[in-house]
Amino acid sequence: MNYFSSDFKLGILGGGQLGKMLLYETRKYDIFTKVIDPSEEAPCKIACNDFVVGDLMDYDTVMNFGKDIDVLTFEIEHVNVNALEDLEKKGVKVYPSSKTLRTIQNKGTQKLFYTDHKIPTAPFKRFAYTSEIKDSIENGSLTTPFVWKSTQFGYDGNGVKVIRKVTDLDGLPNVECITEEMIPFKNELAVIVTRTPSEEVATYPVVEMEFHPEANQVEYVICPARISDEVAQKAQQIAVEVSKAIGHVGLLAVEMFQTQNDEILVNEVAPRPHNSGHYSIEASYTNQFEQHLRAILDLPLGNTNSKVAGIMVNLVGAEGHTGNVKYKNIEEIMALPGVTPHIYGKKQTRPFRKMGHVTIVNEDIAKARSIAEEVKNTIKVVSI
Amino acid sequence: MNYFSSDFKLGILGGGQLGKMLLYETRKYDIFTKVIDPSEEAPCKIACNDFVVGDLMDYDTVMNFGKDIDVLTFEIEHVNVNALEDLEKKGVKVYPSSKTLRTIQNKGTQKLFYTDHKIPTAPFKRFAYTSEIKDSIENGSLTTPFVWKSTQFGYDGNGVKVIRKVTDLDGLPNVECITEEMIPFKNELAVIVTRTPSEEVATYPVVEMEFHPEANQVEYVICPARISDEVAQKAQQIAVEVSKAIGHVGLLAVEMFQTQNDEILVNEVAPRPHNSGHYSIEASYTNQFEQHLRAILDLPLGNTNSKVAGIMVNLVGAEGHTGNVKYKNIEEIMALPGVTPHIYGKKQTRPFRKMGHVTIVNEDIAKARSIAEEVKNTIKVVSI
Repeated sequence: MNYFSSDFKLGILGGGQLGKMLLYETRKYDIFTKVIDPSEEAPCKIACNDFVVGDLMDYDTVMNFGKDIDVLTFEIEHVNVNALEDLEKKGVKVYPSSKTLRTIQNKGTQKLFYTDHKIPTAPFKRFAYTSEIKDSIENGSLTTPFVWKSTQFGYDGNGVKVIRKVTDLDGLPNVECITEEMIPFKNELAVIVTRTPSEEVATYPVVEMEFHPEANQVEYVICPARISDEVAQKAQQIAVEVSKAIGHVGLLAVEMFQTQNDEILVNEVAPRPHNSGHYSIEASYTNQFEQHLRAILDLPLGNTNSKVAGIMVNLVGAEGHTGNVKYKNIEEIMALPGVTPHIYGKKQTRPFRKMGHVTIVNEDIAKARSIAEEVKNTIKVVSI
Repeated sequence: MNYFSSDFKLGILGGGQLGKMLLYETRKYDIFTKVIDPSEEAPCKIACNDFVVGDLMDYDTVMNFGKDIDVLTFEIEHVNVNALEDLEKKGVKVYPSSKTLRTIQNKGTQKLFYTDHKIPTAPFKRFAYTSEIKDSIENGSLTTPFVWKSTQFGYDGNGVKVIRKVTDLDGLPNVECITEEMIPFKNELAVIVTRTPSEEVATYPVVEMEFHPEANQVEYVICPARISDEVAQKAQQIAVEVSKAIGHVGLLAVEMFQTQNDEILVNEVAPRPHNSGHYSIEASYTNQFEQHLRAILDLPLGNTNSKVAGIMVNLVGAEGHTGNVKYKNIEEIMALPGVTPHIYGKKQTRPFRKMGHVTIVNEDIAKARSIAEEVKNTIKVVSI
């Protein structure tokens, strides 16, 4: 199949920063891209060949978008999966598939999938409505603390809350949800697995994620994770098992807990390039976006090793600031060795909005970590 | 100065592959870009914010383009330098400056500049017309072999010819030109120097260039050059001298000969990102395009060290093929470790046209070199 500078068309559902970074790779390979997003100011608006505004959850919109596409992928799970399935029937190659997305899109279905396939995960309960949870607590079948998660439409920490007492449930939307046992984990880890239609598989090194305690957002992603080889191998092995069980094509980011006993429990997966893989742009032989592209086009996968250690710091809107964005002290951090900021191109900031990230690479991971801390304490995403 | 996601405007004269790769970096930083090129199908057409078709050598076109620009740069030397000078007078920051471009644009002026500043370079003669050369040969003041170069408008090996006998002059355009003594060099080297308006300077490692004997085009660029530290230091030192003498801002690629006696002679310079720096995208801590951007915006320069060894192979149109392009065997080379193709996006191939490049990275330069050879012998740029 002639992908390069040809009539081949790649469609991308979703035009946010993940799509934007995928477009760096499609530009590098001169692959024709068509992107759709609900926002006229989406980060993907430029650098694709054809940009369309539309609702990703609307059946007709997605069907219409996909009709002249050869391969279709998505950079966000909130898309109309019935349309994906019908496009597959029409001969469009949809990667990852509608089947993969149905398994993952609903967190309850996802958890059931793990237990059905004997993939280790935290014990959970499923509820049709948040209001039913109080009943469970009252009759003793559920005890605090636990983690509440809406089964659908969660993103960037939204739709997840730690419940330490019953009143923490107040204000939560009354939707289908799950509760998970809280795991007193030692580390939060992630492994990105890539898989092609020809079933070639490659895994990235295990990364460590440090989270902001309240916002449920990642603050640092550290590669390689500072764990034993034994735990790393276990994590990669479980990630590959998940990948094969799901039968996905493209990237699959598997987020995991390392328990106090060094066991691995799968937390969640994302069937697309992921925040935990952004370090790979500067640190890896093949970055995750290029790898996703290679995978969905059934091209040979690239080397997933790291050239150097890499740490990613998220740039999120500072609390108390809403409006036109300014990256305060960005010039200072650019003077530090091995520091590269990525600005997603969102014009407006608001508290905790993902506005960009900064990657710090260094041969020495301890040095990278200390520079990363300096970066984090220096740059501020404020409003003008 | 607030460059990121703001009203700041960067203008780029020229929309070829060098501009295209510069746009990877402006997208990463969300810097607004306006690009002008004579071709409607220029590689930069997408991924800039505003693309304009126009003649870069036309005074009014360039003046009009630059009138709402804050910083103006160029990715090709063949632009109207009077317009650049007048834009500078109007307060547009032009980097590199019109003065730098005047010094470099005419190869005769460039050579005089070196001798005036005691920068070592091959002996040369200047001619108003190619036809005068025969007279010089006849009266004995010039002997074959020598290198003929037109003083203006040369690119990609055009406007350069090795003259071994008088009849080799036949067919050359009757233009202003220089003749240079042929240097029986040991190696052809290049050093990229970056300089900011605040006079911060950084140099990249010395690279080695292997040329195609007939087409005068580079076949392999190897970083680091396989030369002694002593010669490397001399090369970098001379490159910095050239940079300071010219007073340039941005990137300056200095091509040099290493003579049989390990002396360094400056061959030519280019005041922009350069073919000899493409390896830096995968191999360096800061690639040349990001570095050029940092320099012209007076941002801190990044680390110019390499993470891994890197070798670049040019992808040029195969002889005997003209028409819609196909990259034959590209999938095979993508299976080799550390191999990344870059496809510039030109729809039509013709013999020796620069269509892309492939970079091979590896911790071991000898391995990189042997994989590079395999790449070169495998991938072919043909017409459908």
